[in-house]
Amino acid sequence: MAFHYPNGRRFVPQAMEEKKSPLNKISYSNRGKTLEDDLNETNQYYLAHGIAVIHKKPTPIQIVDVHYPKRSAAVIKEAYFKQASTTDYNGVYKGKYIDFEAKETKNRSSFPLKNFHDHQIEHMKHIVQHDGIAFVIIRFSATDDIYLMSSEQLGFYWKRMKDGGRKSITLQEVESSSEKITLGFQPRIDYIKVVDLLIAENF
Amino acid sequence: MAFHYPNGRRFVPQAMEEKKSPLNKISYSNRGKTLEDDLNETNQYYLAHGIAVIHKKPTPIQIVDVHYPKRSAAVIKEAYFKQASTTDYNGVYKGKYIDFEAKETKNRSSFPLKNFHDHQIEHMKHIVQHDGIAFVIIRFSATDDIYLMSSEQLGFYWKRMKDGGRKSITLQEVESSSEKITLGFQPRIDYIKVVDLLIAENF
Repeated sequence: MAFHYPNGRRFVPQAMEEKKSPLNKISYSNRGKTLEDDLNETNQYYLAHGIAVIHKKPTPIQIVDVHYPKRSAAVIKEAYFKQASTTDYNGVYKGKYIDFEAKETKNRSSFPLKNFHDHQIEHMKHIVQHDGIAFVIIRFSATDDIYLMSSEQLGFYWKRMKDGGRKSITLQEVESSSEKITLGFQPRIDYIKVVDLLIAENF
Repeated sequence: MAFHYPNGRRFVPQAMEEKKSPLNKISYSNRGKTLEDDLNETNQYYLAHGIAVIHKKPTPIQIVDVHYPKRSAAVIKEAYFKQASTTDYNGVYKGKYIDFEAKETKNRSSFPLKNFHDHQIEHMKHIVQHDGIAFVIIRFSATDDIYLMSSEQLGFYWKRMKDGGRKSITLQEVESSSEKITLGFQPRIDYIKVVDLLIAENF
């Protein structure tokens, strides 16, 4: 039996991780529980301090069967996870529309592009066409390094993959084409500082 | 047995409507199936024609139990509807953040405020504070009259209720404090035209 706790994450026994894998494989938000928690806390901080209004969208579910017990709440008895057609987070900052996806990997040397899918890349392109701000927040969970990459940059690596190139972004490429976000206490992941840089560059 | 089809809606037998009532009572989006369909079509039109990128958020669900059958998709076996903490629709139009809720009533003479809840009113206030555009689209299903009311106006009637006043907005008040949206073919509910008016007034 081995304990691993260098990265501040809760210890999850291997058996439990295995059990969770069907959800992880289809890459819904549960993949990055810690990243999601940190971002939700950050967004609550932004809301409470009047900085921005950004929320995570609910996980899309296809409901098949609902029961209506007498004198109690409706119970969903059969439902399935659906693939999201957009990104997970959106909201408003200084009047501007903000839209992003957050993903993490256990890889140390590259970020696999399978964390995203065509619909999301397409969605982010549309956002940029309408003068919104779209990006991804990616986390290397082994080192807890977090980066913000603009959707334009991500689109570049996506196209490279579609053209037959590599299916991931190397760590060196991530470092050179995105902004690192220093982890803080409050807010935990202060990504709005990097959004300010994007706004300064583009508007 | 009576058939009613003056308003182009599918005929739903009374028994079926009764069965659906638990969902309606807690005022989730299923209440206004037709309004939701029309808005989704409209948003698809806006997207396809490069006018705006606006999506409906998934219905928020509290998942309690998930089964992972071998060689097939994860099945949610127990889940409950949660109250939304935000509005149902948001997106970007001409770089601006757009946020709205859509509700309908069978009432003819007034729009009941119980269609909304505190969290949503609060959320819309935050959006306006951050220079986003927030409003509600309300539909009187008996007459198929659809109106767009700014969140500031809705906030006025909400406050009147909280101060002990009436729990609804009279049809006359709706008519005088919001913009009527003429039903079209494509797009069905062309609310962006009214958003243009809001932008012209406020920005």
